[in-house]
Amino acid sequence: MTKFGTAAVAGSTRAFRVEGEAVALLPAADVGELLRSPALRDARGEPAAAPAPQELRPPVLKPGKVVCVGLNYRDHAREVGKSVPAYPTLFAKYPSAFVGASEPIRLPRADVSDRVDWEAELVLVIGTTVFEADAEQAAAAIFGYTAMNDVSMRDWQRRTEEWLQGKNFERSTPIGPVVVTADELSLDGGLDVDSWVGDRRVQSGSTDDLIFRPVEIVQYITQFMSLEPGDLIATGTPAGVGVSRTPAEFLEEGDILTTRITGIGELRNRCVREVSR
Amino acid sequence: MTKFGTAAVAGSTRAFRVEGEAVALLPAADVGELLRSPALRDARGEPAAAPAPQELRPPVLKPGKVVCVGLNYRDHAREVGKSVPAYPTLFAKYPSAFVGASEPIRLPRADVSDRVDWEAELVLVIGTTVFEADAEQAAAAIFGYTAMNDVSMRDWQRRTEEWLQGKNFERSTPIGPVVVTADELSLDGGLDVDSWVGDRRVQSGSTDDLIFRPVEIVQYITQFMSLEPGDLIATGTPAGVGVSRTPAEFLEEGDILTTRITGIGELRNRCVREVSR
Repeated sequence: MTKFGTAAVAGSTRAFRVEGEAVALLPAADVGELLRSPALRDARGEPAAAPAPQELRPPVLKPGKVVCVGLNYRDHAREVGKSVPAYPTLFAKYPSAFVGASEPIRLPRADVSDRVDWEAELVLVIGTTVFEADAEQAAAAIFGYTAMNDVSMRDWQRRTEEWLQGKNFERSTPIGPVVVTADELSLDGGLDVDSWVGDRRVQSGSTDDLIFRPVEIVQYITQFMSLEPGDLIATGTPAGVGVSRTPAEFLEEGDILTTRITGIGELRNRCVREVSR
Repeated sequence: MTKFGTAAVAGSTRAFRVEGEAVALLPAADVGELLRSPALRDARGEPAAAPAPQELRPPVLKPGKVVCVGLNYRDHAREVGKSVPAYPTLFAKYPSAFVGASEPIRLPRADVSDRVDWEAELVLVIGTTVFEADAEQAAAAIFGYTAMNDVSMRDWQRRTEEWLQGKNFERSTPIGPVVVTADELSLDGGLDVDSWVGDRRVQSGSTDDLIFRPVEIVQYITQFMSLEPGDLIATGTPAGVGVSRTPAEFLEEGDILTTRITGIGELRNRCVREVSR
């Protein structure tokens, strides 16, 4: 299985490739650059040790677009009181929200938000420029998959009609650890999409329960806008979010949030509350 | 008055500066690059003729963030049946939606959307990295202003709870013609924000009616996320949009949409409907 990622190396970042036990640092700053210059993916590179978890960075550092699909699992739509949607619900994330697979999640000061929730998600990584895609073109545009936790400030998400401000807190969204190529990871039979707060499993979903599946999502989006190499599409979260629990639960200082997807790997992020301005 | 813009030059793009009658091509591909490398703004550059309107491109070609404020004029909130909001309503635009000051607006095929509406807007152009800004820092972060028409597919905007998909049709959003520096354009007394469909004026607003003003918007956004040089913030549209007219009116093939803001200039874009896939 081939995986690509981005690691902190010598004060900067480097893309790396993992094939079996062999790790190579590639001549690119991140996976985004690999996707824009495909020949680099096959470069021999420099043999290296596997990056330590704390060295992992968001695989694509500056995606042109991060498109998120909301309400895309039946059980999650139900738990938040919504019906199964006729169309994908789309909102945006900016890359300033991202942190790597083991970097701290920045909790805002408690007087800014104390309703910080989790949302484990499968993310599509786009590898080619695509517009008005048919099913075959949409499938071919999906270079690979990664994992994300769309950490959401529920109070800010619901302040207005638009969710954006609850989804874009600085350094709140872990993503990674790596991108697994689509030709080596089948969704047939479903991938588990799980999250834990500390030792307690809070989400236990399967991509089999997706309402809109990856190829359909790419087809839908490219009806109206183009996608380009390095663009990311977060496919939504299964049931088990904190705001829908009784009583509601939220992330607190020191919590370890773990996010795991079959075949992709694990994000493990400590929540650290900012205390000063 | 100093203005900066981006023009098509010799198969590529170049940033330019206008000071009085003097136009200089600068050593940068666009205004975004000038904002990230401030020394370039003062480069002598190469004297040139003023770019023709059809050579103008979006001033910032790849902004890291385009944040849009909805419902930010009292008269527009009223015409769409909303109350004056307590917080800014924020949604995102991706740069793939932009076209230059005289480039065609791409209307989708009529079976995709036939409810294409106009929204003239003042846009803030961010010049410095800023997070958790006080009023002084927020004011200092606004490098300048430009004009935009947030052309909106109302049917897609209202398909789901989130507006994003109606605001991001490929090559639908004119922006420009230039960026006027904030130190040379005062909002005191109000800037007119107007649009015309053909010869008929459809919007006639003033920035004096903004609910959340530029400095407040920057302060609000930077409570939760950083802004960086080249980021854009569209501040919302005044009353007069097509969907709120009786009967409702929408843009059609061949319409010329004109957008004008005092002191910034004019966008003049022909609507061209795509006919084939």
